[in-house]
Amino acid sequence: MGSQHRIRRVAIIGGTHGNELTGIYVIKKLQQFPDLMQRSSFDSFTVFGNPKAFAAVRRYVDTDLNRCFLHQDLQQNHPATYEEKRAQEIYRLLVEQNQVDVILDLHTTTANMGQTLIVANTSPFNLKLAAHLTAQDPAMRVLSWAKAEHTDSSLKSLCEIGFSLEIGAVPQGVLDATCFQQTESLLYAILDYLEAYNQNRLFTDPKLFTLYQFIKAIDYPRNEQNEMQAMIHPQLQGKDYQPLHPGDPVFLTFDYQTIVYEGDSIVYPVFINEAAYYEKGIAFCLTEQKQITV
Amino acid sequence: MGSQHRIRRVAIIGGTHGNELTGIYVIKKLQQFPDLMQRSSFDSFTVFGNPKAFAAVRRYVDTDLNRCFLHQDLQQNHPATYEEKRAQEIYRLLVEQNQVDVILDLHTTTANMGQTLIVANTSPFNLKLAAHLTAQDPAMRVLSWAKAEHTDSSLKSLCEIGFSLEIGAVPQGVLDATCFQQTESLLYAILDYLEAYNQNRLFTDPKLFTLYQFIKAIDYPRNEQNEMQAMIHPQLQGKDYQPLHPGDPVFLTFDYQTIVYEGDSIVYPVFINEAAYYEKGIAFCLTEQKQITV
Repeated sequence: MGSQHRIRRVAIIGGTHGNELTGIYVIKKLQQFPDLMQRSSFDSFTVFGNPKAFAAVRRYVDTDLNRCFLHQDLQQNHPATYEEKRAQEIYRLLVEQNQVDVILDLHTTTANMGQTLIVANTSPFNLKLAAHLTAQDPAMRVLSWAKAEHTDSSLKSLCEIGFSLEIGAVPQGVLDATCFQQTESLLYAILDYLEAYNQNRLFTDPKLFTLYQFIKAIDYPRNEQNEMQAMIHPQLQGKDYQPLHPGDPVFLTFDYQTIVYEGDSIVYPVFINEAAYYEKGIAFCLTEQKQITV
Repeated sequence: MGSQHRIRRVAIIGGTHGNELTGIYVIKKLQQFPDLMQRSSFDSFTVFGNPKAFAAVRRYVDTDLNRCFLHQDLQQNHPATYEEKRAQEIYRLLVEQNQVDVILDLHTTTANMGQTLIVANTSPFNLKLAAHLTAQDPAMRVLSWAKAEHTDSSLKSLCEIGFSLEIGAVPQGVLDATCFQQTESLLYAILDYLEAYNQNRLFTDPKLFTLYQFIKAIDYPRNEQNEMQAMIHPQLQGKDYQPLHPGDPVFLTFDYQTIVYEGDSIVYPVFINEAAYYEKGIAFCLTEQKQITV
């Protein structure tokens, strides 16, 4: 997206996962007080991602909605699951009917990730926005999965300018007032940035910030029946974004044997002990720190 | 139970709720290393409460198993739900086949309740055990719902000597190593106590301890459509067992109005923001402190 394009329409999605209550109650609030999300230079509207999963207080009904947005899946004529169908509806609403310029997808995590902005891609626009927000609030972290184009199945990938907000730690099925406030603040900071962008009010001085770049996911030690054989080590639990050195404890077996990190460089784990990732075979994700100037 | 009765058989139940992983992995460990739960004067065995709910990583499949143990429900000829059927199986296994003397039911909570022992009833035996454990570890809390006889629908109520261990805060669907260790330690302390009881090795000097006695449950403020209108206030979040004074904040509305506690005496809230209690209409439970000498 070049600087010649103005942002016209922003979609704010809550409840892509039905048991991440914060985003759901934030969009309920925005529906009740729509002025909060409007800015003079663009329109915003809310989308309730997965209302059926919310009613069941579950992440999803049939399959993870936030893995249903691959191009080929959106084109299939007979979506098999509720979430595949819902993904096509959301695609039509956001892309075909409203041609949204920006997607903001509100999530929470059981990992201690504080306030994390996940960029849909590392376009200059997304990175500049990330740099601006971290300058405003140094506690905010910026994370990139950096998937190749057309391999990202997440909702935010529908748009060139797309972000997930990941706030935690908060349990699934729990509404936490502090996470609610953090989500709302971060959301308004993004909307204010987009407004300033539209109005050419952004300073163009170069900014340095830290990007956490996904390297790979690490599974729990498992036996042949796929049963977990160890837990996240207490010394790693809650230490998202903290440096993990070769030899540091990562797992603790049920008879209290420590398993250490055997990599050969310092990495920065995220999504440590995320409840929703057990079934995906992910105990935590390794990232590396990159200093980015934009 | 008078002092003339010896403990012969102890049942240790994990996974009464399928998404409370700690207890499930503790009983898996005990199945692998059964010596850990055996004592010379009695037998212990494990029961996996709700394996179908565990497979689905949910609290229950059809209905809360830990509310299915009312006497009349256990006698019905055609249990309608999976959990009603399962409750009858567990009843037959524990009571009819094994005539267990003690039930230890392993739970976790998303509330910040640390290590809590919930007594099935306030019999002298249960209170003496509680007093003994709190003397060993003053961080442990003792809670009593004090339901009238035949109105308690929980699994532990099948036995005169019955306890739930509630460890938290831990999210649903998360295995936390510290909670695992705490559960295991508390469990062994109870088994050691029962062994000492059987062997007449207990000191009979009077002990003083604090019992938290349930008063009533408080629901979230809701509108006519039953939608929540407020969250647990940040000043109350995580403050289980801390004194709550009249006028203290308890809820925060979505537009950040504070709602205060309007009772007329100091109370001690527990199960604050427990994920599983939203559907039960419980934001937190009020208790009062009682100093008990046994």
